[in-house]
Amino acid sequence: MYAITLREFGEPDVMEWAEVPDVEPGRGQVLIDVVATAVNRADVLQRRGNYPPPPGASDVLGLECSGVIAEVGEGVTGWHVGDRVCALLSGGGYAEQVVVPATQVLPVPAGLDLHVAAALPEVACTVWSNVVMASQLRSGQLFLVHGGGGGIGTHAIQVAAALGATVAVTAGSAYKLDRCKELGAGILINYREDDFVTAVREHSDGRGADVILDNMGAAYLDRNVDALAPDGQLVVIGMQGGIMGELNIAKLLGKRGTVRATGLRYRPERGRSSKAEIVASVVEHVWPMLADGRVRPIVHAELPIAEAAEGHRLLDSDETVGKVVLRVR
Amino acid sequence: MYAITLREFGEPDVMEWAEVPDVEPGRGQVLIDVVATAVNRADVLQRRGNYPPPPGASDVLGLECSGVIAEVGEGVTGWHVGDRVCALLSGGGYAEQVVVPATQVLPVPAGLDLHVAAALPEVACTVWSNVVMASQLRSGQLFLVHGGGGGIGTHAIQVAAALGATVAVTAGSAYKLDRCKELGAGILINYREDDFVTAVREHSDGRGADVILDNMGAAYLDRNVDALAPDGQLVVIGMQGGIMGELNIAKLLGKRGTVRATGLRYRPERGRSSKAEIVASVVEHVWPMLADGRVRPIVHAELPIAEAAEGHRLLDSDETVGKVVLRVR
Repeated sequence: MYAITLREFGEPDVMEWAEVPDVEPGRGQVLIDVVATAVNRADVLQRRGNYPPPPGASDVLGLECSGVIAEVGEGVTGWHVGDRVCALLSGGGYAEQVVVPATQVLPVPAGLDLHVAAALPEVACTVWSNVVMASQLRSGQLFLVHGGGGGIGTHAIQVAAALGATVAVTAGSAYKLDRCKELGAGILINYREDDFVTAVREHSDGRGADVILDNMGAAYLDRNVDALAPDGQLVVIGMQGGIMGELNIAKLLGKRGTVRATGLRYRPERGRSSKAEIVASVVEHVWPMLADGRVRPIVHAELPIAEAAEGHRLLDSDETVGKVVLRVR
Repeated sequence: MYAITLREFGEPDVMEWAEVPDVEPGRGQVLIDVVATAVNRADVLQRRGNYPPPPGASDVLGLECSGVIAEVGEGVTGWHVGDRVCALLSGGGYAEQVVVPATQVLPVPAGLDLHVAAALPEVACTVWSNVVMASQLRSGQLFLVHGGGGGIGTHAIQVAAALGATVAVTAGSAYKLDRCKELGAGILINYREDDFVTAVREHSDGRGADVILDNMGAAYLDRNVDALAPDGQLVVIGMQGGIMGELNIAKLLGKRGTVRATGLRYRPERGRSSKAEIVASVVEHVWPMLADGRVRPIVHAELPIAEAAEGHRLLDSDETVGKVVLRVR
């Protein structure tokens, strides 16, 4: 089969659509004919050599895909050849075919285009696991998401609004903030002009945000703690602002605050806090929101997989709103 | 009535047993004739002027007591004059009488001496809320508690062991470690001689601790993160090693770790994560462990309240194992 390979680690042009060995489903796995995949920040890091796949995973880029089941491994129940699905992958999505544990396969939500469905597994599993399963955001609370215009941000706004939370976002342009507003954000903060701590406090009688979803890491750590409400929860899922942060423990203790840092890729396949558990909860709770239109997939651009380099440059440009999808078929 | 008053903030000798205005129970409160109270680190901080009582609370020291109910306020059900109880206070325990919301009153566990029961509310509520309610320690997991010889430590060891966890402790002397071992600790680390990260890893095939209860704050933050297992939870309840810590977010993210900092005193009386919720859970889950002897109150010394200064000096000496109780009657 063909897949995106890396001539070396480096800039987008190191990616090449080339022949690689075929893959076969093992016990508990399915083989998917990939119709589309989508670009994640993690792909960019992996392309640069900074984010190795977990042991046993494909070294081909791609953490999610949509497609049609081509083969079902031993012991798999509930999935059949020909099913239209999407999947949360540990790697291998930038390819004609991929194998994945059956527990990480999701049906395509009712009424959704198969290509667009490729943009859902990573954002849906990331947002649901962190914002709801771990941090228990609920109706009436204040939710702050940084990078509101990104793939994660555009999805998180909608899910939090659907839950009945008030949503605050940061973004770097008026255009992005307008799009965030359309998706349900009520507190719009241009981080180039305004301090998000001040803005969040002003909109909450000084109380702060109950849950914060952060992609900036060290650069925002201290201010995120400042922006937390009593019993507030900060979840860090990206480190675009660096790794080594200063944590004022007295401030955190004064709020009884929680700082969590998580990712999906290295989670175990099964058991507590596993990919299987998250995927099952997403299908139960988020898929109905997609089926009835409360949450929509937000796709900035759809490109052929041969133009993966252009897709990566788009993500790096910081001009995208929503996800970049790569068509394989 | 009489209570301990502070001539000024400062050393133990600023404390004086002197006459103060009587107190009366309001709606939902009870008045307790205090039989004993116990010394907490927070009392020492408050005596020094570094830990103000929450708004509306007594400015008399004392976060817990045992005694006999002397009067029941309007709207209180379930408690009667003459009941032998202990209570979690927001202040006021170093006194002949104290008022407290009825939801923070606990029965004296079956078979326990009334004086000794004064040593239970703070440690039981702190350990149960942080280690179990928040961090969900469970059978088979590895639990690390720093300061294993302290009031919190000696209680935490027993509760964690009763839950079926493996317990690791740090302490500063062979004597204290021996006592920790008697209480159920299986991994004994003298922090003056051994690195706790190395020790915890050695005893867990490199995996680390699932839950860490910490009283050192900044000084241990980075090493506590090093000592965490995947999906591990660090709870900071004291800052004896300082406030400003360095947090390596990449390390935390690699483990999907959680850092929480909490206290009891400023929690709301009612609702989610309130004192009432914690007290109810402690009575349900921890009191049976005390009734059947799986958990015992550990008291280092019992002194008359007039010798409160000596009690504080004892705590500061770092030579205590378990709690220091102050007898009022």
